[in-house]
Amino acid sequence: MSSTSVTPVTIIKVDEGSSSITEDFLAAEEPLEIRLGYGSARHRQQKSISVTMRTPGNDFELAVGFLFTEGIIENIAQVAAIKHCDGLHENVVRVELINDLELDMGKLERNFYTTSSCGVCGKSSIDAVKTVCRLPGAIQDQLLFSAELIYRLPDLLRQNQTIFNNTGGLHGCALFDNSGNLLLAREDVGRHNALDKLIGATLWQALFPLNKYLLLLSGRASFELIQKAYMAGIKIVAAVGAPSSLAVQMASDAGITLIGFLRGEKFNIYSGEQRISLAGYETVV
Amino acid sequence: MSSTSVTPVTIIKVDEGSSSITEDFLAAEEPLEIRLGYGSARHRQQKSISVTMRTPGNDFELAVGFLFTEGIIENIAQVAAIKHCDGLHENVVRVELINDLELDMGKLERNFYTTSSCGVCGKSSIDAVKTVCRLPGAIQDQLLFSAELIYRLPDLLRQNQTIFNNTGGLHGCALFDNSGNLLLAREDVGRHNALDKLIGATLWQALFPLNKYLLLLSGRASFELIQKAYMAGIKIVAAVGAPSSLAVQMASDAGITLIGFLRGEKFNIYSGEQRISLAGYETVV
Repeated sequence: MSSTSVTPVTIIKVDEGSSSITEDFLAAEEPLEIRLGYGSARHRQQKSISVTMRTPGNDFELAVGFLFTEGIIENIAQVAAIKHCDGLHENVVRVELINDLELDMGKLERNFYTTSSCGVCGKSSIDAVKTVCRLPGAIQDQLLFSAELIYRLPDLLRQNQTIFNNTGGLHGCALFDNSGNLLLAREDVGRHNALDKLIGATLWQALFPLNKYLLLLSGRASFELIQKAYMAGIKIVAAVGAPSSLAVQMASDAGITLIGFLRGEKFNIYSGEQRISLAGYETVV
Repeated sequence: MSSTSVTPVTIIKVDEGSSSITEDFLAAEEPLEIRLGYGSARHRQQKSISVTMRTPGNDFELAVGFLFTEGIIENIAQVAAIKHCDGLHENVVRVELINDLELDMGKLERNFYTTSSCGVCGKSSIDAVKTVCRLPGAIQDQLLFSAELIYRLPDLLRQNQTIFNNTGGLHGCALFDNSGNLLLAREDVGRHNALDKLIGATLWQALFPLNKYLLLLSGRASFELIQKAYMAGIKIVAAVGAPSSLAVQMASDAGITLIGFLRGEKFNIYSGEQRISLAGYETVV
């Protein structure tokens, strides 16, 4: 947890007929601009490609994860250097790509939702993601997570959410293997940032491929989160909250197992049920 | 609730040792592209200004609310027409501005976070919002909401969240007067979209100004939500979840009362406590 990830604040606490002035902590939110340096050794160019509201901390991971999940870079070897741009504050990160890396400039201008030539719709958004993804297509895998193990994961994530535990104000996500070991966890005020930080960290730490892990999300599962998971080759996603219609469609289309409403000893399976072991479970008709 | 706002789905429900196949409903998520038509009567131009993942329904309100909270239009009279662009699907909305309306083209290219010339930071984001807002500055107001009334608001919002009640998957927001009457409520998979729909509806229905109402948010309060509330002249915001550091800074700077963690008979006041009546409350030191 970075010292800038939480901000102290004085509040008035109102509680059933009494009030008190007290100190509390807020999850920090600050803009982060991501700039890309690219071109030849002789002719370097720079482009600002994103500004996101994020919780300061793990900014390099966020930048690299964003570039990867948007399909702009394929791997960490394409990044020559990365630094905070400005001595005055730490809200601008510049990612220096290796010389002469070929870039689809279109991808720097638009995101997945706007790549379609036939106008925007859910199906074209999914097709666009599948076109951009460079990972090998669906291979028959033997990945299996038991229901009993899945029940335990939200508590394990919560124990790792240091900022959340101080502020109650952050989305979290984590990768687990099928023995319940937590590989990595990240958190942020923006759920897409939390996942970019997580995926960026795995690139950074050379933990790829991620196809053996379950991705746990502390909140809802949107299309964007499933898209990022897919780009990283993740095969199982479990969300504490509800999935959206397009998240389910994307997961189903991409062969990803999607679980939602994971609370206590309950959850719903929306797709890819072959990876969830319900051994000994009674089937209610 | 639009018929396209929820999507039926077949799921496997896992529940403490048993599993069953059942029908359920998902909150719909689809991209919406907002296009702007502008220029003179003779020379009309078109520009795509935003693609957002939203729950279909109230799309015109969303488009108008977005244009207003981004500072692109000042009022509904600047909108000459609005329509779904494409007969095939309803994911593109075109907003036709009145002839010869002067536009700050820069605002169509970038958002509040990137308007600053000195790089991005929380303070410059707040300054940018304050520069764009065309509402009269802070006037001494006598607005007062009692703690007892505020406790009741989340339940009143929940009763109005028809899609949430079917899917568990949506952010909601609503405006209340200080007798507890609900003026309007809107919901969406994106919290910023829910608020744009709400503000767009008030423009559409000529309910401005909003400075007599409390804005209730079903989730967390981010900078972006406080920025939108500020653009609409809202003076009190209460969130069921946590606020971020920049949300508190923006609210405090703009003279907005900000409440967070509104649950049961408890809440925290982060700024503007003069608008909250705690009559009869014991002050704990």
